[in-house]
Amino acid sequence: MKNTKISNAVIKRLPRYRRYLIELEKKGVEKISSKEFSNMIGYTASQIRQDLNNFGGFGQQGYGYSVTGLREEIDAILGLDREYRMVILGAGNLGHAIANYTKTLTGGFKLCGVFETNPDLIGKMQDGMEIQNYDNIVDFVEKEKIDIGIICTNKESAQEAADKLCFAGVKGIWNFARVDIEVPKHVALEIVHLSDSLHALAYHMNDIKKKEKGSKK
Amino acid sequence: MKNTKISNAVIKRLPRYRRYLIELEKKGVEKISSKEFSNMIGYTASQIRQDLNNFGGFGQQGYGYSVTGLREEIDAILGLDREYRMVILGAGNLGHAIANYTKTLTGGFKLCGVFETNPDLIGKMQDGMEIQNYDNIVDFVEKEKIDIGIICTNKESAQEAADKLCFAGVKGIWNFARVDIEVPKHVALEIVHLSDSLHALAYHMNDIKKKEKGSKK
Repeated sequence: MKNTKISNAVIKRLPRYRRYLIELEKKGVEKISSKEFSNMIGYTASQIRQDLNNFGGFGQQGYGYSVTGLREEIDAILGLDREYRMVILGAGNLGHAIANYTKTLTGGFKLCGVFETNPDLIGKMQDGMEIQNYDNIVDFVEKEKIDIGIICTNKESAQEAADKLCFAGVKGIWNFARVDIEVPKHVALEIVHLSDSLHALAYHMNDIKKKEKGSKK
Repeated sequence: MKNTKISNAVIKRLPRYRRYLIELEKKGVEKISSKEFSNMIGYTASQIRQDLNNFGGFGQQGYGYSVTGLREEIDAILGLDREYRMVILGAGNLGHAIANYTKTLTGGFKLCGVFETNPDLIGKMQDGMEIQNYDNIVDFVEKEKIDIGIICTNKESAQEAADKLCFAGVKGIWNFARVDIEVPKHVALEIVHLSDSLHALAYHMNDIKKKEKGSKK
């Protein structure tokens, strides 16, 4: 693997490659050319070759890519060849939603605990897991060797939750709270704003409507 | 508003501007310079000016932006100044998660119904809403004037679900199914791959680890 700096855009495309490769594996396809892969995935063949060359390139000119080989390489690049132990902070609607969602995840992502400050929720069962007291989060992260903290708190509590998780030793934060948070440099941060995606959808819907009106004039 | 083609990258940044503007409004801030806004949001002042110039620009040189004025303009651009009626297809873990999530949405996004093919789930109450029979989706969309269909089905059913929703007349599809789907040109499509975000997080965690190891040599 080349040790060059890989752009965020490439990193964002790799999981997409991986999804298509898994589909191909399921269908028993062993080899695929960048041209065929391009038709399937909707990027140009040149884009695909360029992306994969970031990692030294796996295809041999004229022979195509080994589907399983490429998928395994991408797994290794993304670090999906190991287990990730996760906790959720915040057991409200959002935390409940994400806890539910983690059940549908494939690979080594394992939800180990859900934590909450609200005394009405602590001790209750939610999706087969007892909601734990937020006060115990640091001990739990240390003892259970938690890698990833998923923040599903309200905006006001998100930064404090992140500080506590980082102090306790998580290596990554997956933030669903509706606020941008800061973490130390040695901790990775990935932010999901579902509402941003919904707002973009609203924009595109209105954009199409405007164009339709325009073309009727 | 200028009638130029606005890039997807700008569209993706507008909801972020909007979130910060709402925070400022809550704090009672009326005006903000692009410099101050830049410090807050983490883009360069020049990037912000350039983005907002796409829409004709709202700031007056030396006077800064009107916080509420700018937020209202962004609302209008994104089409958030109206109601969107939504249905969810698929009441499994993922659909349940997203139904829960929609409760936390601000603005005009309204979940009107949840539909399912599984007879064990149809008729059950989920988060205060009765799960309806998928067979009735077309009638419901027409009668209830549904704008957005949210696809939370399994991969195998996603394209058929999208076809049915588009036939029934939705104007936008928000796809959470783990497969890429196609829609007619007059329908907007926005895809969420939460797992892509989690995989990117795993990559960044491993990247940081590699660098730490490298620097210890």
